[in-house]
Amino acid sequence: MGTIKASAPPSNITVEKWVDHILGDAKVNTPAAQASAYAPSNIALSKYWGKREASFNLPVTGSVSISLADHGTQTDLCIIDGPKHQVSLNGKGLDASDGFVIKLSQWLDRVLPKNLKLGVDTINTVPTAAGLASSASGFAALTLSTNSLMGWNLPQHQLSALARLGSGSASRSLWHGFVKWHAGQLPDGSDSVANPLDHQWPDLRVGLLTVSSHTKAVSSREGMARTIATSKLYKQWPQQAQNDLATIEAAIAMGDFETMAKTAEHNAMSMHATMASAWPPLIYWQPESLSQMQKVWQLRAQGLPLYFTMDAGPNLKLLFEAKHQADVESAFETVKVITPFQ
Amino acid sequence: MGTIKASAPPSNITVEKWVDHILGDAKVNTPAAQASAYAPSNIALSKYWGKREASFNLPVTGSVSISLADHGTQTDLCIIDGPKHQVSLNGKGLDASDGFVIKLSQWLDRVLPKNLKLGVDTINTVPTAAGLASSASGFAALTLSTNSLMGWNLPQHQLSALARLGSGSASRSLWHGFVKWHAGQLPDGSDSVANPLDHQWPDLRVGLLTVSSHTKAVSSREGMARTIATSKLYKQWPQQAQNDLATIEAAIAMGDFETMAKTAEHNAMSMHATMASAWPPLIYWQPESLSQMQKVWQLRAQGLPLYFTMDAGPNLKLLFEAKHQADVESAFETVKVITPFQ
Repeated sequence: MGTIKASAPPSNITVEKWVDHILGDAKVNTPAAQASAYAPSNIALSKYWGKREASFNLPVTGSVSISLADHGTQTDLCIIDGPKHQVSLNGKGLDASDGFVIKLSQWLDRVLPKNLKLGVDTINTVPTAAGLASSASGFAALTLSTNSLMGWNLPQHQLSALARLGSGSASRSLWHGFVKWHAGQLPDGSDSVANPLDHQWPDLRVGLLTVSSHTKAVSSREGMARTIATSKLYKQWPQQAQNDLATIEAAIAMGDFETMAKTAEHNAMSMHATMASAWPPLIYWQPESLSQMQKVWQLRAQGLPLYFTMDAGPNLKLLFEAKHQADVESAFETVKVITPFQ
Repeated sequence: MGTIKASAPPSNITVEKWVDHILGDAKVNTPAAQASAYAPSNIALSKYWGKREASFNLPVTGSVSISLADHGTQTDLCIIDGPKHQVSLNGKGLDASDGFVIKLSQWLDRVLPKNLKLGVDTINTVPTAAGLASSASGFAALTLSTNSLMGWNLPQHQLSALARLGSGSASRSLWHGFVKWHAGQLPDGSDSVANPLDHQWPDLRVGLLTVSSHTKAVSSREGMARTIATSKLYKQWPQQAQNDLATIEAAIAMGDFETMAKTAEHNAMSMHATMASAWPPLIYWQPESLSQMQKVWQLRAQGLPLYFTMDAGPNLKLLFEAKHQADVESAFETVKVITPFQ
C-alpha cells in the first residue's frame, strides 16, 4: 500500500468466483417475499481517489468517512416475475437502459441465483441537488436489503466487501458515525473492507451547501482513471492520503476538531489538485464553489473554526462544531446542517 | 536539476561580491546624464515556480516564455542630488516606503557606486488591471537602462543575471520572442541566465483576459515559498516542469501549435494544482477565472484550437493562431490580442 500498483487482474480469482465463495450455499436460499433496508450517505474526510484494481474496486489507499445520519437511501426489495429487474428511483420507474439500472442489475445478477428477478424501490432521502454520492448509500442499502431478502446472514465485513463491488465508497455506508475503509492487500479484496470507528462526536456538524449544477460531465470513476493516467502530481497522492488518514483517525480519537477538519480540507484540496493537473484538466468546481471557498477562508481568517471538504463535484460540505452553528447558518443562508451523531 | 535543493546559501560568495566581480571597474564609471530602455513583459509557457536559492533568485527548473512585444516597461534614468532614489510609476511619484521603491532601490544600491542616486521614471505600457507581471519587464528595463547610463557594456547574459536578482522572471524580459531561462547549476547563478530562442512564429497570438481583481493577497514569492513548504504534490513538480520545458521547446522549433499550447496549459494547471494543495490553500483564481476556463474548454470541445496559460494571478492568457483570431474575439468580447512577432 502507499504505492500505485498496476491495474492488472489481481490474481486468477474472478469476481464471480469470489462471490460464489463468499455466499456459498446461501446463494440459492429461498428468498423472503420482500425486504427493506436503509443506509446513510457518507462523506470522506480522507478521500478514496484511485483504484489499484478495477474489477474488485480496490483502492490505492484507505479512507475514513462520516455518515450522514438520516440522509441516505431506503431500498425495498420484492420478488417479481419477468426477464429483468425493475428499478424505481424516488417513486419513478426507470428504463432498463438507464445507467443506474444497469449498474444495479449487474450487481444483483452477480449475487442472486439465475433467473431470480427483483423489484427494487429506491428512495433517496438526500435531495439530489445536494450532490451527495447516492451510489454509496444506494449500494449499501441494496446490499443490506439483499442480505435480508436472501437470508444470507453474512457478517458486516463481508457485506462491506459486497457493497464495494457496486461502488467503492458504498463499503463505508453500512454504518453510522465514523467509518474506516481499509485499503487491504489481498488480491481478492477480502481485507479491503470497512469498519466503524469507536468514537462518538455529538457536537460535530456537517453543513451541506448546494451549488446549482447539472449532472456532472465526468463520473468519479472516469475522473480517477484520467487522473492516474495523466497527472504527474498524482504520484505523491497515495503517500499524502495515507498520512492524512492516520492524522484524521488520531484526531477523531482525541476529539481534536481543528486537526481533523484542517487535514480533511487539505486532503480534499489536494485531491482536487490531482484532478486539475490531469489532462484534459478536470475541474469539478463551479464559479460558485470558488466563491464559497473564499467565504470559508475569509470567515476562518476572522476566527471562525470552519473548514470544508468536497468530493468529485461542485458542492462544499462544511465541517464545524455545534457551538458555531448559528454563525455558520447566518453566513450561509442556504446551508443544510446535519448532526451525524443524533 | 530536477530535484529541489536546500535553500541554504549557495556557497561562500555573497550577492554583493558576485556583483562586484561582474561589474569590476565598470561599477565606478562616470555615468551619463541620462539613459532610457524598454523591455517587454513576458508570459511563461513552462513556468518558474520554486526557488532553489533565495538570495540569487535561482530557480528549481528552467522555463520558457514568450515576450509581449509593445506590452512592457519603459524606464528613464537620470542622476539626481539627494539621499535617496526618486521613483515614479506611470508619471506619479512614489513614496520611499512603497514596496516597489524599496525593491528598486535595493537593486540599484547593489550595482551603483555609493552615494549615486537616480531618478527612475517607470512607464508600464501594460494596463495594470491586465495582471501581467510588471516586475519582469520593470527589472529588465531597469537593468538595460542602468547598463546604458553607467556604460557597463555588459554582455546580455550578464545583464540577464543582474535582472534576475531583482525578479526571477526579469531574466527572460531582455529579449523579444521566445526566451529560455536556464536553471543553471553554479552556486552563484552565473549560468542561471536566459537566452532568446531562434524561432519566429508570426502567426502566434496571445489574448489577454482581465478578471476584475484587487491586488493579489499573496505575492508570487510568498506563494512559491508556501507551496514548497506545505504541498506534498509539489515534489513531482520539478520533474514535470523539466519535461514540459523540453516538450515546449521542441514544439516551438517545429511550429507545432497544438503540442506547444496544450503543454503550456497543462503546465499552468499543474502549477496551480501545487498551490491548491498547499496549506493554507492558495487559490489565485476568481470565480470569473473559472467561468473563462470553462468557456475555453467548451470552445475547444467544439473544435477551436484555443488554449490558455495563467500565472500566479486570476487572469487567463489565451494562446491561439492568427487564423482563429476572429473566433476568439467574438467569443471573448473584452480580449486584448497581442502579436508577439510584429
